[in-house]
Amino acid sequence: MNPLRIGHGYDLHRLEPGLPLVVCGERLEHDRGCAAHSDGDVVYHAVTDAILGALAQEDIGQLFPDDAPEWKDADSRLFVAEAVRRMHTAGYTLGNIDVTVILQRPKMSPHKAAMRDNLVALLQTDPGNVNLKAKTHEKVDSLGDNRSIACHVVVLLQTT
Amino acid sequence: MNPLRIGHGYDLHRLEPGLPLVVCGERLEHDRGCAAHSDGDVVYHAVTDAILGALAQEDIGQLFPDDAPEWKDADSRLFVAEAVRRMHTAGYTLGNIDVTVILQRPKMSPHKAAMRDNLVALLQTDPGNVNLKAKTHEKVDSLGDNRSIACHVVVLLQTT
Amino acid sequence: MNPLRIGHGYDLHRLEPGLPLVVCGERLEHDRGCAAHSDGDVVYHAVTDAILGALAQEDIGQLFPDDAPEWKDADSRLFVAEAVRRMHTAGYTLGNIDVTVILQRPKMSPHKAAMRDNLVALLQTDPGNVNLKAKTHEKVDSLGDNRSIACHVVVLLQTT
Repeated sequence: MNPLRIGHGYDLHRLEPGLPLVVCGERLEHDRGCAAHSDGDVVYHAVTDAILGALAQEDIGQLFPDDAPEWKDADSRLFVAEAVRRMHTAGYTLGNIDVTVILQRPKMSPHKAAMRDNLVALLQTDPGNVNLKAKTHEKVDSLGDNRSIACHVVVLLQTT
Repeated sequence: MNPLRIGHGYDLHRLEPGLPLVVCGERLEHDRGCAAHSDGDVVYHAVTDAILGALAQEDIGQLFPDDAPEWKDADSRLFVAEAVRRMHTAGYTLGNIDVTVILQRPKMSPHKAAMRDNLVALLQTDPGNVNLKAKTHEKVDSLGDNRSIACHVVVLLQTT
Repeated sequence: MNPLRIGHGYDLHRLEPGLPLVVCGERLEHDRGCAAHSDGDVVYHAVTDAILGALAQEDIGQLFPDDAPEWKDADSRLFVAEAVRRMHTAGYTLGNIDVTVILQRPKMSPHKAAMRDNLVALLQTDPGNVNLKAKTHEKVDSLGDNRSIACHVVVLLQTT
């Protein structure tokens, strides 16, 4: 068994007027939100895929199909929880995780501490192993136009 | 010698009408494909760059220049094979690799198992060390317009 | 203390006519450059964020706010140096780092050796632990239009 495993997660959702914007478990006040089958939480989706990717298991789209009625408007923390369950079953714990969110508006800074707390609880790890940072996209492309939100995640798993 | 080394690969190719679309060694039926000097396999290119990057060696563009006649329409598995050869020469084997392909259309799911098998053989590793997942780009930007295809790769190498 | 920590950095800057273009400590001749509060060095910013992210500390925007007068036109190597200082204080050294720059024009190849040398010195490590590669964006999106420059970084830290 590999002593360490690396995983990568990337997700992007389109932002559309009048929908709720949920990022890393926090509801942000905004005039638009994510068009998605579940609650559209781009961070939880990318974190789920990074952990599943490190384990070389089925990805989020295979485990939680976006045409399955049971995941309609689902709370995406269920997806992270399932990835964590599989990580423990496979004999790994979280080493550390680094999350980068790209969102032009609104400002993420007032929510970052709460978002990180959400991840720490879900990933069952120490706060020192979880990082979340936010960037704008300098007004270029769909991200810069605030027509989308994206997230990059890298994760290191270690044997228990 | 570092016991572990990390590498990152990113590649994007433009999709144009009437060209073949080859992704991770598989030919996909589609009305467009990659404009490239070689066969334009975005996954094999990003995997090659991730391994070379982890080794801190010359990148794919330096080893296989896109103005060199010998690489015209080349099968990109040659590039991965050379990166693997260099990895072994340097005293490393693959720890694990996580590949994320971004393609709006066609669906990658029917091809994922074959693609992963191709990587497992090329990387001379166990299937449990290789992951490949696919995402759409939610119809935004050139990726969402199906005018391009991109790939992100992270890799962990370990000493033999 | 985790024996190894992973970090991820991503940055993108808009390119505008008549501004200087500074990439990884090198001034490139070009008709446009980065609109930024500091010198706009996208590589140094992404490297800083990757190291801080691996340490789960405040990010570059929190440590060096872009509305603080003291960082106006700042040399971004100060940001990398502070991240390195914090890495050492936390008991880590650089394992290895892999940097991918995306820039349509001008060509990066004449500058790559100098850029890598700059990173090796700043990161206080061996040249074999530092990799920098460059890609174009195949003429699509703002990157392909030469209206922006981006950088992806992955880093592995190890205990001293």
